[in-house]
Amino acid sequence: MPNAAASLSLGQLALRFGCALRGDPARPVDSVATLAGGARSLGFLANPSLLPQLQAVQLAAVVIQPRHADRCPVDALLHANPHATFARIASLLHPPAPLVCGVHATACVHPSASVDPTAEVGPFALVEEGAVIGPRCRVGAHAILGARAWLGADTRLLERATVLAGCELGARCIVHPGAVIGSDGFGNARDGEEWMKVPQLGRVRIGDDVEVGANTTIDRGALGDTVIEEGVRLDNQIQIAHNVHIGAHTAIAACTGVAGSTRIGRRCMIGGGTGIGGQLCIGDDIVVAGFGMVSHSLTEPGMYSSVLPVEEARHWRRIVGRIKRLDALNARVKKLEGSVGASQGEDDEQY
Amino acid sequence: MPNAAASLSLGQLALRFGCALRGDPARPVDSVATLAGGARSLGFLANPSLLPQLQAVQLAAVVIQPRHADRCPVDALLHANPHATFARIASLLHPPAPLVCGVHATACVHPSASVDPTAEVGPFALVEEGAVIGPRCRVGAHAILGARAWLGADTRLLERATVLAGCELGARCIVHPGAVIGSDGFGNARDGEEWMKVPQLGRVRIGDDVEVGANTTIDRGALGDTVIEEGVRLDNQIQIAHNVHIGAHTAIAACTGVAGSTRIGRRCMIGGGTGIGGQLCIGDDIVVAGFGMVSHSLTEPGMYSSVLPVEEARHWRRIVGRIKRLDALNARVKKLEGSVGASQGEDDEQY
Amino acid sequence: MPNAAASLSLGQLALRFGCALRGDPARPVDSVATLAGGARSLGFLANPSLLPQLQAVQLAAVVIQPRHADRCPVDALLHANPHATFARIASLLHPPAPLVCGVHATACVHPSASVDPTAEVGPFALVEEGAVIGPRCRVGAHAILGARAWLGADTRLLERATVLAGCELGARCIVHPGAVIGSDGFGNARDGEEWMKVPQLGRVRIGDDVEVGANTTIDRGALGDTVIEEGVRLDNQIQIAHNVHIGAHTAIAACTGVAGSTRIGRRCMIGGGTGIGGQLCIGDDIVVAGFGMVSHSLTEPGMYSSVLPVEEARHWRRIVGRIKRLDALNARVKKLEGSVGASQGEDDEQY
Repeated sequence: MPNAAASLSLGQLALRFGCALRGDPARPVDSVATLAGGARSLGFLANPSLLPQLQAVQLAAVVIQPRHADRCPVDALLHANPHATFARIASLLHPPAPLVCGVHATACVHPSASVDPTAEVGPFALVEEGAVIGPRCRVGAHAILGARAWLGADTRLLERATVLAGCELGARCIVHPGAVIGSDGFGNARDGEEWMKVPQLGRVRIGDDVEVGANTTIDRGALGDTVIEEGVRLDNQIQIAHNVHIGAHTAIAACTGVAGSTRIGRRCMIGGGTGIGGQLCIGDDIVVAGFGMVSHSLTEPGMYSSVLPVEEARHWRRIVGRIKRLDALNARVKKLEGSVGASQGEDDEQY
Repeated sequence: MPNAAASLSLGQLALRFGCALRGDPARPVDSVATLAGGARSLGFLANPSLLPQLQAVQLAAVVIQPRHADRCPVDALLHANPHATFARIASLLHPPAPLVCGVHATACVHPSASVDPTAEVGPFALVEEGAVIGPRCRVGAHAILGARAWLGADTRLLERATVLAGCELGARCIVHPGAVIGSDGFGNARDGEEWMKVPQLGRVRIGDDVEVGANTTIDRGALGDTVIEEGVRLDNQIQIAHNVHIGAHTAIAACTGVAGSTRIGRRCMIGGGTGIGGQLCIGDDIVVAGFGMVSHSLTEPGMYSSVLPVEEARHWRRIVGRIKRLDALNARVKKLEGSVGASQGEDDEQY
Repeated sequence: MPNAAASLSLGQLALRFGCALRGDPARPVDSVATLAGGARSLGFLANPSLLPQLQAVQLAAVVIQPRHADRCPVDALLHANPHATFARIASLLHPPAPLVCGVHATACVHPSASVDPTAEVGPFALVEEGAVIGPRCRVGAHAILGARAWLGADTRLLERATVLAGCELGARCIVHPGAVIGSDGFGNARDGEEWMKVPQLGRVRIGDDVEVGANTTIDRGALGDTVIEEGVRLDNQIQIAHNVHIGAHTAIAACTGVAGSTRIGRRCMIGGGTGIGGQLCIGDDIVVAGFGMVSHSLTEPGMYSSVLPVEEARHWRRIVGRIKRLDALNARVKKLEGSVGASQGEDDEQY
């Protein structure tokens, strides 16, 4: 929960974030809020379906697209991208807690580790042999940075985040509590009825500006590396298997799993609860709706889905029965086609 | 694993828990067990399909409904709700380990935090600035209570449970190991091909008597709060996104994900592995069978499902082929209907 | 990330691992690699579809089946099971970091715990009352071994792994970071609109040579125990509910959930993202493809699936509409059959 900051005027905000201002430049703003917020807060409206809610707004001002300005009964900051502008202003008004430079008395830092003097290492944090912590990094309480691991400038490992030996993160990353980066991949070789563990020898390499959600796990590569390019956003409880490669600016929502050696392109958006099989290639600009099952490669940009929305349970059971007898239904239609002499609708024996 | 307690007599148990006793009031009971347990243990039977198992029972007694009493060959405690009565007796006979009041020598407690003298703060626990710990709370080993967070009386954070800044829990809650309460929601605004982080400024507010499972994550609200009302039960590895609201006494089984701003009513039961989309409204008394995909709001109480049970894999592949060609099958039927002059079964062009 | 070791000759490797050698016995090997590796590395080829890649290989040698030896342009170690042989050699060349025997200065070990002098207890580790740590075990940084818990010889709890009170692990197990073994099962009894917690009194018992993935959770039994037999492999973020029993040498991929009291046989392979319902019986040698929904018992060995691969989203929406109207389509076909006097294809009223 970021802190509150001092107030700024609408004029200062307009200047700083490149907005046109419609209203009083001296009006003070000290926080951001929903459209239901109070007289010293700033809201935003990006979704036109919410325009009717503007009637009752009592905010200091609203960040809004120029074409909707006339609908806004209070002052307005006009910008083509209200959501991103709002995010920037919110980050300014509610910055993260300032760093407490230095190593907490209870932390355990190996003498060979390199900790920039502007970085913070929190209570019970562990920094192992040869690890490198860049300027203005934060290694939170109970976080672990393994041997020879590497954090770029301004990167923050939050509470209990774990980055294991040899893994590298770029600048300005955030790793949320409980995430594990660099766990062993699931590498097993059959030997009779037993499994032999295959040593997992690669690393995880993460670019700049990546966010990794709470309790998400990213396995190290088996031989090569697992790679997360810059700007990727991973939500909570995601599993990324060994040797996966995720392209820049792709966002993946919670509870998604990506199996080994799959390559996902740039700017993809993967909905929550999605499963992506192993050794697939997902191109750039692919969108998968939540709960999708991706079991083959996808190359064409576009939106994909396999969600089956819930039905009333008894009706659903009847439908499942119908689904499981689709072969029989098809045969009945084929027989009817024979009876009436219709031309067959398709080559039925291809499956 | 709770401890064993001293023994009690059947007469004492009957009196304390409002049961009619059929048998020897002096018979001692020192533990609870399955129907296969021994002569000093108490079992229960709630599911009538297990009645035949009673024949071989060697327990001290069985908690059972009055209408089944005649089937029980040993002593019986009669109660309309055997399962709940058994749960109460089990809690009495096997209480959690007693608290060790005070702060462990290795814990780290900020001087401004308020720790009730009857509370326990375990090894390597971290209690940050301004946090408040109520009477008889337990903050387990490696648990974290963030700045200005708040625990009501008798609440227990178990090992490695993490409650981040500003979040509040009511009385008698249990947070299981590895759970994270108050992680940032997945708030991102598009800006060209990049994502801007939207600061997550709300909190998580949890009512009384809530249980949060191991490695479950509950995100703080983006602007308002994420709210879990009293008596909610969350199993392991559940993900609750920002600004979700869960009504009282709802139970959600493991591996379920609930996307942002969705509102779930009271007394719902959500099966394991369910996905619930964002910005939906799920009413009171809704039951969703396991593996359901909820992508639209549900208002009518009742049971919902979209589970597709596994089939032999080759047969399933044929079925998937049929499913994907349902449009073509429908067209063939329509053509047949034209051929035989049948009236069309439905308005086929609505989709 | 295991360490590098000294080099060995091909002759030494052939002798030690029972391979026929085709090439120079004196050639040195100091690491394993993919087929793209360098002149002092060893690769392997098990999948015949990769044979064309051998053309460009510059490795010291390749572990390969005898029948493919002629296709290999560099030296070859011939073995019927190249993958398992490669795993063994990789383990030799890249052993895990050696143990640092003894208890780290920051660890917290109860005086009644038994720690073998050859074991390592890492920074901030917690070993509680009466716990037993066998020879050559590693209790990693921030790991927790609860009261009266038990680790067999050579077992390793990695960073932040948590084994709660009374649970037992056999020899040579590995528990990856963030895993929780012995959390309470989801035991709740309805009492009016409230839930009563049912104390979870059993343990988790794990056999020899079991691997438990990062952030996986295994609940203790409600009354009896949860049991994982020897040689089982559990990937990351798996949930195993109370009183589940998993047979020897079964492997389960990531993000799978198994509900309470289900019994899974030996040598099963369960794909990632699978859901397995409660109180089921899954036989030996069952294979479930990823994203499967197992809601009934499976007894016949074989492969099962219910995966629905994603489609282009608009097409998929049309298909979902068709699926939900399968009853109507069936009725139309039945009516057609009546019209043309065809015999009905199946007993349609059984559902």
